[in-house]
Amino acid sequence: MYKKCSWVNCITDKSKKMKKHNFNAGPSIIPEQVKEQTAKGILDLNGIGLSVMEISHRSKEFSAIIEEAASLLRELLFVPDSHSVVFTHGGASLNFCMVPYNLLEKKAAYLDTGSWSSKAIKEAKLFGEVEVVASSKDKNYTYIPKNFTIPANADYFHITTNNTIFGTEIKKDFNSPVPLIADASSDILSRPMDVSKYGLIYGGAQKNVGPAGVAFVIIRKDILGKVTRPIPSMLDYRIYIENGSLYNTPACLSVYGCLLMLRWLKNLGGVKAIHKINLEKAKILYDEIDRNKLFKPTVPNEEDRSIMNVTFVMADEYQEKEADFLQYAISQGMVGIKGHRSVGGFRASIYNPLPMESVKALIKAMKEFEAKL
Amino acid sequence: MYKKCSWVNCITDKSKKMKKHNFNAGPSIIPEQVKEQTAKGILDLNGIGLSVMEISHRSKEFSAIIEEAASLLRELLFVPDSHSVVFTHGGASLNFCMVPYNLLEKKAAYLDTGSWSSKAIKEAKLFGEVEVVASSKDKNYTYIPKNFTIPANADYFHITTNNTIFGTEIKKDFNSPVPLIADASSDILSRPMDVSKYGLIYGGAQKNVGPAGVAFVIIRKDILGKVTRPIPSMLDYRIYIENGSLYNTPACLSVYGCLLMLRWLKNLGGVKAIHKINLEKAKILYDEIDRNKLFKPTVPNEEDRSIMNVTFVMADEYQEKEADFLQYAISQGMVGIKGHRSVGGFRASIYNPLPMESVKALIKAMKEFEAKL
Repeated sequence: MYKKCSWVNCITDKSKKMKKHNFNAGPSIIPEQVKEQTAKGILDLNGIGLSVMEISHRSKEFSAIIEEAASLLRELLFVPDSHSVVFTHGGASLNFCMVPYNLLEKKAAYLDTGSWSSKAIKEAKLFGEVEVVASSKDKNYTYIPKNFTIPANADYFHITTNNTIFGTEIKKDFNSPVPLIADASSDILSRPMDVSKYGLIYGGAQKNVGPAGVAFVIIRKDILGKVTRPIPSMLDYRIYIENGSLYNTPACLSVYGCLLMLRWLKNLGGVKAIHKINLEKAKILYDEIDRNKLFKPTVPNEEDRSIMNVTFVMADEYQEKEADFLQYAISQGMVGIKGHRSVGGFRASIYNPLPMESVKALIKAMKEFEAKL
Repeated sequence: MYKKCSWVNCITDKSKKMKKHNFNAGPSIIPEQVKEQTAKGILDLNGIGLSVMEISHRSKEFSAIIEEAASLLRELLFVPDSHSVVFTHGGASLNFCMVPYNLLEKKAAYLDTGSWSSKAIKEAKLFGEVEVVASSKDKNYTYIPKNFTIPANADYFHITTNNTIFGTEIKKDFNSPVPLIADASSDILSRPMDVSKYGLIYGGAQKNVGPAGVAFVIIRKDILGKVTRPIPSMLDYRIYIENGSLYNTPACLSVYGCLLMLRWLKNLGGVKAIHKINLEKAKILYDEIDRNKLFKPTVPNEEDRSIMNVTFVMADEYQEKEADFLQYAISQGMVGIKGHRSVGGFRASIYNPLPMESVKALIKAMKEFEAKL
């Protein structure tokens, strides 16, 4: 006699496998239902008999997808009418050069809080003068600089809100005398932001927005059109706005994945609801790091600690246990917790889709490993 | 008693639906097995318990995917060692500006054979002098210009091998005194090409290579590094080569789809085998257009007719039947055969994955409609 088949189980026999806890830094965990819906749309989009991969980006079906995705991002972040929401190519990295291409006429100000800031600064220098207002490089980016002045004569001021590698985060919305530009790749949608305070917010989708392949950009329209250089079409934010992100063919499948993930977040209660969960996930994990004698956090100042990427290392007297703990954690189903080579130790990326259950599993593994010693 | 379930049938009950014949111009038809394998990889990649969407682009699993995709493209096109194969962001359109950014120091030569050539020319003009060596704009791009001279003092000579909108194609590999650059978005892998004759071949993946979201670029390494301008990292071909297309996060899902489609083509016998099928598909369709009194081709010269995009209009005395035929064809399962607004009439895009069966179904509809009159 045949067993009734759930289509997902037909493909993935999870009963035989250990539960994986996906702490990958990005591309990172996607909610189960988003994976299932994406797979379904690949086989047959909404029952039209065609895949989401094989319809025109100008078809009514795809227009509906990209419009709903942009409008959900707008709704979830309470984006004011002064700002446009578009999807660009090339992730945050392409935007590192698009920002100065579109906005840097004479001088731009940057806050240097890690590798991604440094990469953004490097690209900006090709287009004009760059003033680095402050940097935490002196202490391997383990804190967010305070007490700096944003120059009033800069074309804009650029920050990286969350530093995926170093585990620090700027959780407040700055008051800036010049347009505030934020790379929010790894903390967008994790907490409420006052979008009205920003000239431009951008980032790669592949953490809290959806699968890799698109970048989201939220732009205050009136800051555009002020530079004198000619801008290639595909780097010009105005072209994306005028064409509803469809000047050319986008990564359609990635946009579809973003739509499904944004719907998932809306159904869950939106940014305020997920923020509450994120704070709780971060709290219990940092508490364990602070409590457990084997570990110590890499970011001493609680205010600067990221609620998305929790970085920690072995306490001084247990350095030699690092590889053993990593092995033990892996044996308990943890994925992607090895720290970035520039920090060492461990990094638990606990983005929106990562369930509380996974954070608790990691904490359990930390306690068990401590008890074994 | 339960019915045994094929997982694909669980999701898509095709038995109830009319077979669709997908003539979309791009994004376009994807082979059934590629759709099924992509869906599977989204739920669980090779049984690792994680989705292809939620693993690091630097993981061993994803490295294997992108390396095999690049190496299959190399194998299928017999790319010589002098050339690198990379995947970039932004489709052909971003490459419209990357080509001059990397290669145009003083003057570039372009052949104008349609909308895409014109867009490429527009971007190149931002970087230097552009000499348009010939154009078929005088006759709405219904032919490929002949008897032009490629200037020996140009930095490169740019062509669009296949004109998706106008249904023309350059089927031979030019001998060029300067690096030959080809946008081959819509005919790459449809026929053998002598890659050694090209300095650079590029295009959006979304026709014969895979789903939208990546561009393929085949570059003769020694033509790079000769311009004096600084190049932003994400627009610099050298950065893609040095980093194996992983300087930043690519559209991972799209790259995975490309790998599956390239494997499909290899299993089918490669470019030579598909070329034979493509020639046959194009032949029977053009034959019917030439034979059927209701229709006429838009490209009079057989030599210039595309084997990928077959464009045709109603014969002069049957102009008023255009909407009726479109309706009838749709009723018979044809998808995407309405011509582009700048040509009118019809366009049947018959890319590699479109089966002979679909071409025959279109021909049947053309004959049936003729018989009805």
